Amino acid sequence: MNKAPEWIWYPGDYEIFHHLLLNTRREERDYHWPAFWRLDDCYHNVRFRKQVECDKPEQMIVYAHGVGHVWVDGKKQALRKPIELSSGTHMIEIHVARTDGLPCIFVDGERSTSNSSWEVNEFSFDWLPAGCNGLYMDKEDDPNIFAFRYQPISPQSIEKKQDSVLYDFGRETFAALLIEKIAVQKELSLYYGESCEEALDTEHSILIDVIPAGMKNYRCPPRAFRYLFIRGAEIDDLELTALYEYLPLEKRGSFSCSNESINQIWEVAEYTFHLNSREFFLDGIKRDRWVWSGDAYQSYLINNYVYFDTDIAKRTIIALRGKDPIVKHINTILDYSFYWIMSILDYYQATKDKDFIAFIYPRMKSMMDYCISLTDEDGFIRGRKEDWVFIDWADIDKTGAVCAEQMLMAMSLRATWTCGEFLGKREADYLNRYEQLKRQINMRFWDEELGAYIDSFESGKRNVTRHANIFALLWDFSDSEQRERIITNVLQNDTVPPISTPYFKFYELEAMCRIGQLDDVSNQMVDYWGGMLQLGATTFWEEYDRAVTGRERLGMYGDRYGKSLCHAWGASPIYLLGRYYLGVHPTSAGYDSFAVEPRLGGFEWVRGTVPINGGTVSVERTRQSLRIVTDKEGGCVRIQGQEFPLMKNVLFEMNLS
Amino acid sequence: MNKAPEWIWYPGDYEIFHHLLLNTRREERDYHWPAFWRLDDCYHNVRFRKQVECDKPEQMIVYAHGVGHVWVDGKKQALRKPIELSSGTHMIEIHVARTDGLPCIFVDGERSTSNSSWEVNEFSFDWLPAGCNGLYMDKEDDPNIFAFRYQPISPQSIEKKQDSVLYDFGRETFAALLIEKIAVQKELSLYYGESCEEALDTEHSILIDVIPAGMKNYRCPPRAFRYLFIRGAEIDDLELTALYEYLPLEKRGSFSCSNESINQIWEVAEYTFHLNSREFFLDGIKRDRWVWSGDAYQSYLINNYVYFDTDIAKRTIIALRGKDPIVKHINTILDYSFYWIMSILDYYQATKDKDFIAFIYPRMKSMMDYCISLTDEDGFIRGRKEDWVFIDWADIDKTGAVCAEQMLMAMSLRATWTCGEFLGKREADYLNRYEQLKRQINMRFWDEELGAYIDSFESGKRNVTRHANIFALLWDFSDSEQRERIITNVLQNDTVPPISTPYFKFYELEAMCRIGQLDDVSNQMVDYWGGMLQLGATTFWEEYDRAVTGRERLGMYGDRYGKSLCHAWGASPIYLLGRYYLGVHPTSAGYDSFAVEPRLGGFEWVRGTVPINGGTVSVERTRQSLRIVTDKEGGCVRIQGQEFPLMKNVLFEMNLS
Repeated sequence: MNKAPEWIWYPGDYEIFHHLLLNTRREERDYHWPAFWRLDDCYHNVRFRKQVECDKPEQMIVYAHGVGHVWVDGKKQALRKPIELSSGTHMIEIHVARTDGLPCIFVDGERSTSNSSWEVNEFSFDWLPAGCNGLYMDKEDDPNIFAFRYQPISPQSIEKKQDSVLYDFGRETFAALLIEKIAVQKELSLYYGESCEEALDTEHSILIDVIPAGMKNYRCPPRAFRYLFIRGAEIDDLELTALYEYLPLEKRGSFSCSNESINQIWEVAEYTFHLNSREFFLDGIKRDRWVWSGDAYQSYLINNYVYFDTDIAKRTIIALRGKDPIVKHINTILDYSFYWIMSILDYYQATKDKDFIAFIYPRMKSMMDYCISLTDEDGFIRGRKEDWVFIDWADIDKTGAVCAEQMLMAMSLRATWTCGEFLGKREADYLNRYEQLKRQINMRFWDEELGAYIDSFESGKRNVTRHANIFALLWDFSDSEQRERIITNVLQNDTVPPISTPYFKFYELEAMCRIGQLDDVSNQMVDYWGGMLQLGATTFWEEYDRAVTGRERLGMYGDRYGKSLCHAWGASPIYLLGRYYLGVHPTSAGYDSFAVEPRLGGFEWVRGTVPINGGTVSVERTRQSLRIVTDKEGGCVRIQGQEFPLMKNVLFEMNLS
Repeated sequence: MNKAPEWIWYPGDYEIFHHLLLNTRREERDYHWPAFWRLDDCYHNVRFRKQVECDKPEQMIVYAHGVGHVWVDGKKQALRKPIELSSGTHMIEIHVARTDGLPCIFVDGERSTSNSSWEVNEFSFDWLPAGCNGLYMDKEDDPNIFAFRYQPISPQSIEKKQDSVLYDFGRETFAALLIEKIAVQKELSLYYGESCEEALDTEHSILIDVIPAGMKNYRCPPRAFRYLFIRGAEIDDLELTALYEYLPLEKRGSFSCSNESINQIWEVAEYTFHLNSREFFLDGIKRDRWVWSGDAYQSYLINNYVYFDTDIAKRTIIALRGKDPIVKHINTILDYSFYWIMSILDYYQATKDKDFIAFIYPRMKSMMDYCISLTDEDGFIRGRKEDWVFIDWADIDKTGAVCAEQMLMAMSLRATWTCGEFLGKREADYLNRYEQLKRQINMRFWDEELGAYIDSFESGKRNVTRHANIFALLWDFSDSEQRERIITNVLQNDTVPPISTPYFKFYELEAMCRIGQLDDVSNQMVDYWGGMLQLGATTFWEEYDRAVTGRERLGMYGDRYGKSLCHAWGASPIYLLGRYYLGVHPTSAGYDSFAVEPRLGGFEWVRGTVPINGGTVSVERTRQSLRIVTDKEGGCVRIQGQEFPLMKNVLFEMNLS
């Protein structure tokens, strides 16, 4: 008896198709705003095959989304009709085309049942293991529809106004409104707001819905909001149901400490992150609901410390890459191609998932080769005319080859080489290029006089920003003397402009953790994230500046309500607290071995759990004691300069006083 | 005042999208049969731009199939709402995404009106002139629906049977049935037949429709048929309307001669060809309704002598090529990649259409480069494991490098070089490879002893077939001595197996015309095509063998009704009669200069008109006289070894007795 059948498709195409849908869904008032990069689509014509060994006769029915037919031992048969298979071996090939979506099949049978043991081909030469994801297990399912869950939620307060109503759902959410039994004949206008100001500012609120006059029932697309303002009806003129749309995710990580503000930060960060963890890791649920490789790179790391959901990580990696031929960088941003490549090594480090690495490696290699094709004789890469050399919203000298980009390129070369080694590819060229580039970076960008990496050696400006220097600390571009000088001359130097975005703050805080400045990090967390909480934030914002007050806080990009108030990168404390306070991290791929180096960071105590690829480790540290328990082999404790092994399912307890 | 607006899209994507639809539409009884090659799709996210100079204020409305917005001078606006443009210069950019079809726009304005002066980009670097085709000129139009015309047609006879009806439409057609006012409650079954036998053989007829019980009205998809058998109803139980679905094409060419059978052949060939000239040049309207590059190559040539419809030729060329990356040969067939490349040079020779050549050249070059990447050090190309080395249904020795394939490759190299020269590309490598390959072909495949080209030099079998030798005659691979020997040793040698398919008969008859054997060609036409007419054919068949009788005539590919009775290649007399009897052909690109070399081919007289790229030439030759008139400059008459200039709009008259 085989496992239950599931829907299968061309591997990676489920992700690419849903990424296409996602990228075209952004709305602002009365227009859509599709993403401004090439959107790839799934293949629309595919064939599935399997050699089925029947130990007894069985009946097979092939369900499909699309049109096509079934070849059984060289004879064509119809979809959706019973096909009798005799005992013995049968060669089955199923052809399915669907022009407006993802072609996929579901084979109800015994030995013939559909699962990843089937192979798929898009009429090129290669047959690949079929894609499937465990979310579509019923013949009535349709993988063209993302398997979200829905849960009715209620407003916390309702305020009647003349001919209108203001609902407050108590916290930020993402929900589809169902308006039923509409008793008025005129048009109804719905204004959504992440803030109350936005919902009431009907001329400027970004998300709106208009229900045409005369409709009795109406279902709005799901939208991000906390407040809802309906104009044109009184409360009793309609029945409102809000359906929270979400991806079920298991909270496997936890954190608490002696500082209640930090504890609240962790919980709000988790909710913020959950809202943004959907088909893929989004940047924000209101704006822009797209997948950005640089943002996603941080989300992968955060995910490892709370959900350890490898499926969403894989979906995001596949979606961002899209299909060949590559014509521009991911999200049009040079750095974002590199974060994409690097993310695969991080995924490998966390999971040691050979199937996925084998699947993605050809796409990783072609992405890397694309970048290599754009390098000069020194191995440096430059942005072309329309490439976006981003790094951060900061005054970086972007003349010619930019230091931080070269560091990302070097890390990408190393990642490609490492993944290739894992698969036995022996692509030494990547390693050689990595080493050459690392030398070139130190030769051309290290300014001995300034004791820091400069942004550009071509402009002659010798401009120093924190960005490349932070990368150098995080990714070992420097020797110990250089490191000391960077800490003094850059990190602790107030004349070097401060990092202003939470996006790059992620790397700066991580660098500070690495050099042991946890107390400072704790203070910054209380100050920055705690500051948002004091202003009533129910999810973390895209950006926060204590100095900005009033409605100005809601604006960004020149737009009155342009700021996202629920932004994934706002969840970075989850990563920092798990990685550097609880101190859990893999020391070999897949957490086959891992270290636990708990630090208090100025708190009285810290406590929490970290998922470690099929297991968990729970840590409790006070000033006096340390207790660790894990259900996975291979751990060690590093504390007070010493290292101790961790035994599976055996409490490790240590007196620290 | 500008021209009326029209719908515009990413160039080539209209063709690729409709090719996707077409390739998934084939049906046989209760299943679909999508084509067995990779199907590409249009881009789903594109942007349009134009710098608009308004000499006075104007209002612009942007209609779109898809979602998106309009940027006017850096400010976003909604689709489908009036936008006011002041006098002066405006930078307009329109973003449109459509996940399930072709994104396209229609701008209703004055200076801002949409047409090919707009540029389009799919978010790569290059902006291209917008695609449009003159078929979608109204804002209510949708380029996602192919602009066919429809015309009601009536059955010629209706035969009542118990609980069923047989309709005969008098000749082959392609029509959608509309069944209305159904008065019976049970299921109705419709069986279509290109032959009466097929319609009545309800267990085996290939095209069927089932109208579920209880339906009052039903519209069937358009299908190929002459006969229709409805089971489950009497005549008065329903109202039947048949809507002939067709592409309007102007018959610009004509031919008649003293042989009435030939005249009838020309007319039936024209009808056969018209039925198969739709979105693209199809092979057959019943089976398989796909676009085959080798078949299309002949259709381009036939088209030049009857419709001179450059739009359908361009559509077919674009559709067949699809998108990058190339992973397999066109239609999976090695030779078909070459016919595709060669067709572009033929199109150029007929039209001198620089815009199209400039558009297609990058795709032509990448197709050529793909083939070059598969060659060995001699420049020879071989089929890979899953490549289909076709040439023809014949006993060709396909060991290693096959002679006919190398000749096609050589012609492709020459075509790519020639088109590149036309565009000023100076890609001498193609010319060098062509010359080298031509030398290699003569060195390795010419068998001096046999006085013929052999199929393979690697097998040692020295097998001679007509195919490569015909190519050598047509495409000047041989010197005059070789040519004489080929004629004697191959063409006129009954021990060399005869060509058995009408597909390759095209090239054989053309070769016979070239060497002056028109009388033989005339006899073969009367015999082969006239033979089908004698059997009551209303369109020409995929294949005809006088020796096969009864129902066996309808079978092919092991399928009882597998033979297509309306097959485009059956129309080749149109080409042969126009090209070699009326004798009209271009002597420089676009018919800037052209020759008229009329020959009687054994007939008393021949008369007809040939379209010549914006003009026509009419020819009438008897044994005694020759009369030619043309409305285009650049012509010359070649007759009785002499050459005379043709004057535009001046009757050329000559006494031949």
